[in-house]
Amino acid sequence: MPYTRLTTDLRQTLRDIQSDPSQLFIVTDTNVERLVLPPLTEAMPELASTPRIVIPAGEAHKTLESMTGVWQALVEGGATRRAVILNVGGGMVTDMGGFAAATFKRGIRYINLPTTLLGAVDAATGGKTGIDFCGLKNEIGAFAMPEATHISTAPFATLPWEELLSGYGEMLKTALIADAGLYGKLRHGAPLLEDLPALEAPVLRCVEIKRDITDRDPHEKGLRKALNFGHTAGHAIESLLLERGTPAPHGIAVAWGIKMELILSHIELGLDSSVVTGYSALLRDTFPAIPLTCRDTDPLMALMGHDKKNAQAGQPDFTLLRAVASPQTGCTPSPSAISEALELLLNL
Amino acid sequence: MPYTRLTTDLRQTLRDIQSDPSQLFIVTDTNVERLVLPPLTEAMPELASTPRIVIPAGEAHKTLESMTGVWQALVEGGATRRAVILNVGGGMVTDMGGFAAATFKRGIRYINLPTTLLGAVDAATGGKTGIDFCGLKNEIGAFAMPEATHISTAPFATLPWEELLSGYGEMLKTALIADAGLYGKLRHGAPLLEDLPALEAPVLRCVEIKRDITDRDPHEKGLRKALNFGHTAGHAIESLLLERGTPAPHGIAVAWGIKMELILSHIELGLDSSVVTGYSALLRDTFPAIPLTCRDTDPLMALMGHDKKNAQAGQPDFTLLRAVASPQTGCTPSPSAISEALELLLNL
Repeated sequence: MPYTRLTTDLRQTLRDIQSDPSQLFIVTDTNVERLVLPPLTEAMPELASTPRIVIPAGEAHKTLESMTGVWQALVEGGATRRAVILNVGGGMVTDMGGFAAATFKRGIRYINLPTTLLGAVDAATGGKTGIDFCGLKNEIGAFAMPEATHISTAPFATLPWEELLSGYGEMLKTALIADAGLYGKLRHGAPLLEDLPALEAPVLRCVEIKRDITDRDPHEKGLRKALNFGHTAGHAIESLLLERGTPAPHGIAVAWGIKMELILSHIELGLDSSVVTGYSALLRDTFPAIPLTCRDTDPLMALMGHDKKNAQAGQPDFTLLRAVASPQTGCTPSPSAISEALELLLNL
Repeated sequence: MPYTRLTTDLRQTLRDIQSDPSQLFIVTDTNVERLVLPPLTEAMPELASTPRIVIPAGEAHKTLESMTGVWQALVEGGATRRAVILNVGGGMVTDMGGFAAATFKRGIRYINLPTTLLGAVDAATGGKTGIDFCGLKNEIGAFAMPEATHISTAPFATLPWEELLSGYGEMLKTALIADAGLYGKLRHGAPLLEDLPALEAPVLRCVEIKRDITDRDPHEKGLRKALNFGHTAGHAIESLLLERGTPAPHGIAVAWGIKMELILSHIELGLDSSVVTGYSALLRDTFPAIPLTCRDTDPLMALMGHDKKNAQAGQPDFTLLRAVASPQTGCTPSPSAISEALELLLNL
């Protein structure tokens, strides 16, 4: 029974927080309701009658309109200040259900059961919640920590290969900033993703690393910026591919962004070149290529200048590595260093 | 120049928090824009060019629709994570501008300049923000503390008498739960409200009391419930009068609710009857009568049973007084004690 540990943990949390079963609400999306809720409620029959608030699947529905529907369903379901939201889904669901919890009656409790690898190692931990607004990602949101995040790799069996790779990109980032031993294990590449029970230990280690960082810096004042490694370039690549009509999953764009930022770390902080070449080989062997060339340096530079994480408009901020597991936040390399790293990324 | 101290304090805060003038946004309403912004910008000319986000005046506009307009104006105005919102208005404005700040890019800073007596002594301090939703007051919101709340009684000169009384009701509550000396001064009644410069000291003392309580219990886990004194009955009176088409300002309903809860404090906790009779005389001499009779006991009982602050549905929670400045939270008197207190309130 792949869901046994998950349901044991969830039952324990519901007891610990003295959740009233009549005040439990599942927030999920249409895909997860079809693929994951049947085996989950089979393993935990008491969830079969829990009211479900179902958002249409897909990032396009991470909107204020969907959010309004979630709030309305809570009001109509008679949710009180003692209500608990159980988010079952990927990052879209945990971000939205978390924001609903952060704002309903000025804050109720919530629990995350991430159902995607990317959600498990990224969105479901750390308390960032929110919705897209006016075409901007996570423009409206709040910091609100879940009561608990319970993870099992069992639901990942329903994911397409690209979605597994997307989560794997974020796992590589987590290992590179914090744990050389974990990075060594993750370098096995694709075979790791094909054995879901064996994937559980490295996934839980990634979550532990993220939880440790976000508990120490919940509002992203400093330390937490280390988690942005790979993301300044990664977000620019993700945005440009989306603009061109050839979107890539977030973690795949980040995997390519990591390579660019490893090159930049070598240029700026003297990161050993063997880390760059080792990672490049893993990227080439495991991830799909991205349809960008050295002619795309200028648009990528412009996109990095607009990143909302920048302290100063036009001047991109990077987290770079002095070595594996030794990150440095707040790096602002010269434009020539940035464009050199981009050209090396796009020419290879 | 009645605005001199206010503008001195505001300039100091803007310096202290290193606010970038190009990232300052005023949130206000149509009444305040007409009545208060002219003298304020005369005293502080650098605010004349600050972008204004103007909500239509009146509680009816404390909606998700108005909120969406505030968020949109921030996006269109190029607000970054360094942006600061300056709320200039009554409770509707500070609640909405505060919620916009709590949620824009997962939280930016804000400053409150309350322009009503009620807002000054109540909504503008303590970090409760939000909007009404599905006909429910403050159903969607967040706890988010302002960087500062600066208070001057100068804008209160624009208020109708009923609005001054409404704030005075909340001042009486604050004094009764926390400061017998202040309560002694406040018992001067109407003449106190006619001398705005002299009103400043007791107003600032009320704000200090509220800030002290809310700093110690920001999320209303315990201590903060003391601030609900007068409000279990007050909210029921406010709701019933609204239903009947004869609405009373919040603080006037609370002033009557205080009398009911003083009677109940006498019945339940042995509060000295001289406190009840003294307060009753002040209420009769200062506040307008409310159009309710002993026939309204049952609907008021039902409304109190539905209060969202109740730990258990149907069982109203009260904060009562053992003596002036000695509150006891979490009191759950018997239905017969509650109805006795209501009948004594409505028969006198």
